[in-house]
Amino acid sequence: MRGSMNRFVLKSAKQCLINGRSNYGTSSGGRVFGSAVVGRSVELSGQRNGGVAFGGLEWRRMMSSAPASLEKESLEKKERENSAAEDTKGKGDVVASSYWGISRPTITREDGTVWPWNCFMPWETYKADVSIDVKKHHEPQNFMDKLAYRTVKFLRVPMDLFFQKRYGCHAMMLETIAAVPGMVGGMLLHLKSLRKFQHSGGWIKALLEEAENERMHLMTMVELVQPKWYERLLVLAAQGVYFNAFFLVYVTSPKLAHRFVGYLEEEAIISYTEYLEAIKSGEVENVPAPAIAIDYWRLPKDATLKDVITVIRADESHHRDVNHFASDIQFQGKELREAPAPLGYH
Amino acid sequence: MRGSMNRFVLKSAKQCLINGRSNYGTSSGGRVFGSAVVGRSVELSGQRNGGVAFGGLEWRRMMSSAPASLEKESLEKKERENSAAEDTKGKGDVVASSYWGISRPTITREDGTVWPWNCFMPWETYKADVSIDVKKHHEPQNFMDKLAYRTVKFLRVPMDLFFQKRYGCHAMMLETIAAVPGMVGGMLLHLKSLRKFQHSGGWIKALLEEAENERMHLMTMVELVQPKWYERLLVLAAQGVYFNAFFLVYVTSPKLAHRFVGYLEEEAIISYTEYLEAIKSGEVENVPAPAIAIDYWRLPKDATLKDVITVIRADESHHRDVNHFASDIQFQGKELREAPAPLGYH
Repeated sequence: MRGSMNRFVLKSAKQCLINGRSNYGTSSGGRVFGSAVVGRSVELSGQRNGGVAFGGLEWRRMMSSAPASLEKESLEKKERENSAAEDTKGKGDVVASSYWGISRPTITREDGTVWPWNCFMPWETYKADVSIDVKKHHEPQNFMDKLAYRTVKFLRVPMDLFFQKRYGCHAMMLETIAAVPGMVGGMLLHLKSLRKFQHSGGWIKALLEEAENERMHLMTMVELVQPKWYERLLVLAAQGVYFNAFFLVYVTSPKLAHRFVGYLEEEAIISYTEYLEAIKSGEVENVPAPAIAIDYWRLPKDATLKDVITVIRADESHHRDVNHFASDIQFQGKELREAPAPLGYH
Repeated sequence: MRGSMNRFVLKSAKQCLINGRSNYGTSSGGRVFGSAVVGRSVELSGQRNGGVAFGGLEWRRMMSSAPASLEKESLEKKERENSAAEDTKGKGDVVASSYWGISRPTITREDGTVWPWNCFMPWETYKADVSIDVKKHHEPQNFMDKLAYRTVKFLRVPMDLFFQKRYGCHAMMLETIAAVPGMVGGMLLHLKSLRKFQHSGGWIKALLEEAENERMHLMTMVELVQPKWYERLLVLAAQGVYFNAFFLVYVTSPKLAHRFVGYLEEEAIISYTEYLEAIKSGEVENVPAPAIAIDYWRLPKDATLKDVITVIRADESHHRDVNHFASDIQFQGKELREAPAPLGYH
């Protein structure tokens, strides 16, 4: 109990949004659920009257003793609510596995509506810092810088020729590539930390967060642009080549790899700026923002494509800074772990 | 400003622990720091009188306007405070990179002392649910189950012969292996999500969290046992073989891979139970818990090795459940993303 209490307090932003009950609308699921998170669920159900205040916000929470029938209803409600929500088909059948006491408690928004996403949680959402300088540039100073810069500029040529004015597709393809380096870097630092029994300085998490953030950009773009079959093929090929190439570069020279990503992000910022101008000029219709983007970046309900591209560009600017910074550290002959990783740089 | 305010509110648990100033005790660092997180730092310095209440807790926070000299002092204090803290050598030099406005603000515990870790933050710590059933076992039901089970049992033989009664080393080596599958699985699901433009159901995060948790086990064991040179060599070899082997298994049959990890965790639980018995019987001295363990699992200041091994075993039990569950889902002919991933199953 105390355990879950402490956890509850520290992770308040998280816990306050969770209903202490199984997501699988069955009593068996409900019973077993107790074995794994009973502490937490009791903790939550112990405070039914009104929800919990934290950081100045009030979250409404459903009673954790809701009968199975009600749970089913809320599940259906969830599906009605958000057509763009993740596919939850067949979830019910998986309850056979509930011997392991695994379940994802139902999560609600501050307004009490069911949270439709599994790939990100309310406490992982944020407001992008759009005040960031999108024009910063690292002047290539040595051979490696120039190599990274020219490679990126060279790779841009075929991309521009292929996509031309199809900004949406361009952005989408860009994200399938942009989400790779963070994962490769994070994985290699993780393995290094294990091999050398060394701390990571928080860089593993920082790089994995970058990868996840880029993947969320992709999940957003997919709602706006449906990739064509030959584009899907292109992604397959691109990922196969790019993942392995970047893996080798990162193994041989992390500073080159991070510099390369820094420049890649600079190009991404340019592309998104062109995208924004096309929206402003009316060349691209300023459609309403997809539901996933409104939830992920805490955008207003009436947000549009322009707002979405603006926050994505801000994210890319943060990645540019982090990767050039990581490269600078190593050009100073240091290891990443010697400088604490930045926090919350989506 | 508003951006950071909202972010501040949602991530209150996080923000309340952060001092809105650079970790590099230099005025230049301080100035540039503003460019990236000025919103947040101003937000925090805007509430100097007494700190912020959330989830029923009060966190003391230092003034974000502390002069450079003070910052230096607190940095030295930090080093004095915790000898087991991560290596922060040469951090000052990295300030040359502050053009990118990257910095890790100083973070304090609830008692106001400086947080000495970079690899995990106060809001990522938790109390392990030690009430979990450590005896649960998945009865091999089909060929794949048996294959996974026998492989694990077979691999255990040389391990036991090699380590015999050296429980500490055994545990440490175990963790260098145990931290690999989560990373491999998370990475492959991440790449799959990018290739197929599909949501992950939260499984990428769940598996990466498992890997990080196992890595923290290792960081803890390293404080207790200093690996010998031939053990370091063994880790190199083991990781090289195991990473690639597991990668191939996961690519060809994720359900086999998860089942294998499930059984691996069952063996880990057995090993940690033996370790606990050796401590109880006095065969192994019940030394004080390392500082990192006390902070990561929120253990009492006077916690001992016994407490540490108990919470690690609880973590392993959660991983056992999650991986057998993941395997069950796929034996039902479903994909992981069809069942929402569990939350906070360290």
